[in-house]
Amino acid sequence: MSTIGLLGTGNVAKVLGAKLILLGHEVVLGSRDPENSPVAEWAAGHGAGLTGLAEAAAGADLVVNTAPGLASLDVLTKAGAENLRGKVIIDVSNGIESRNGVTAVATPDGGSIAEQLQSAFPEARVVKTLNTMAGQVMVDPGRIPGHHTVFLSGDDPAAKAEVTELLKSFGWSDTQILDIGGVVTARATEAALLLFIHLFNTFGSPEFNLSVAKA
Amino acid sequence: MSTIGLLGTGNVAKVLGAKLILLGHEVVLGSRDPENSPVAEWAAGHGAGLTGLAEAAAGADLVVNTAPGLASLDVLTKAGAENLRGKVIIDVSNGIESRNGVTAVATPDGGSIAEQLQSAFPEARVVKTLNTMAGQVMVDPGRIPGHHTVFLSGDDPAAKAEVTELLKSFGWSDTQILDIGGVVTARATEAALLLFIHLFNTFGSPEFNLSVAKA
Repeated sequence: MSTIGLLGTGNVAKVLGAKLILLGHEVVLGSRDPENSPVAEWAAGHGAGLTGLAEAAAGADLVVNTAPGLASLDVLTKAGAENLRGKVIIDVSNGIESRNGVTAVATPDGGSIAEQLQSAFPEARVVKTLNTMAGQVMVDPGRIPGHHTVFLSGDDPAAKAEVTELLKSFGWSDTQILDIGGVVTARATEAALLLFIHLFNTFGSPEFNLSVAKA
Repeated sequence: MSTIGLLGTGNVAKVLGAKLILLGHEVVLGSRDPENSPVAEWAAGHGAGLTGLAEAAAGADLVVNTAPGLASLDVLTKAGAENLRGKVIIDVSNGIESRNGVTAVATPDGGSIAEQLQSAFPEARVVKTLNTMAGQVMVDPGRIPGHHTVFLSGDDPAAKAEVTELLKSFGWSDTQILDIGGVVTARATEAALLLFIHLFNTFGSPEFNLSVAKA
């Protein structure tokens, strides 16, 4: 069992945190302002730690970035390069912005948030995954019937293998976990957020997932 | 049976043209330069017409834009607003460009090619579809096993109903055809091109398709 630092205190942090605790891991939520965090009651009730960003990263075997995409670089910078060195960072973030009143995917310089983080923290091992679905599907893939897919992007094969094991502990099977290549391929899954949003609007529910059907 | 004008003479035009002819439609390929088109031999061999863009659009009951995404506005402008008025335009295009040596999705002004065309030709009825998969899958969905999906985006419900019937004649079933909303939602499927590209690189084959799995 590992100590897992979840940077960010939003809904995805809570969903992932609850699952990780259920699986026996020690979970520490990292907040910009742990003294005044709206997640304090949740953390106490679930047995999760709640600290500053640097402390959460420093004590973690594995770090998960659950911050909003456009805030992620700042959050990881506050967590500190020295606290991220050598560690796997699972990046589940997505960047969203409104352009002329229409929701759009926002990525730094036409790239992806995952690339931005990998570039800013070259000694960390960024793996982009789980960012194409709702939180409840991330940790409970069985709630969606039939074949569906979780994508992996990252430059470090050993880091991707480690994340694959964690995904399996969530309930994902080998046939559902699809490694699509280096961290640059995170552009594809980050761009797919727009499809998620329009499918959510179509169905009126986040209870779906993308899948890849193959001959 | 209809007369279908395919604007563009690339591989997708040939794949769609061959299928439409097989289904009994009259097919006319529209080219910028029909006298010197590399598709002339193919057209003659398959019983397809080959004319200028305006002539192909003028004689068509239904128009299909198979031109590259970033060329589409120019191609439809040459086809002529008066020849497109009131007609369904199936837009299967995707915009691609290279940014710092990496393939990226190119869309006009952060929107989509489909919106650009609908806006430029407000009296035409643009339906974006089939743009998320390889040509051979568009016209033969049965070659991919299991559930997979073709998306529809467009502002005109009657136009989408007409396109749905055409998709069914290609072999798509009602459960595979997913209307995700107005033409603005084409942004989502055009952005998904990047996922197609990286999946193509992963599998080394275009014999796959996206699917939506739903609870």
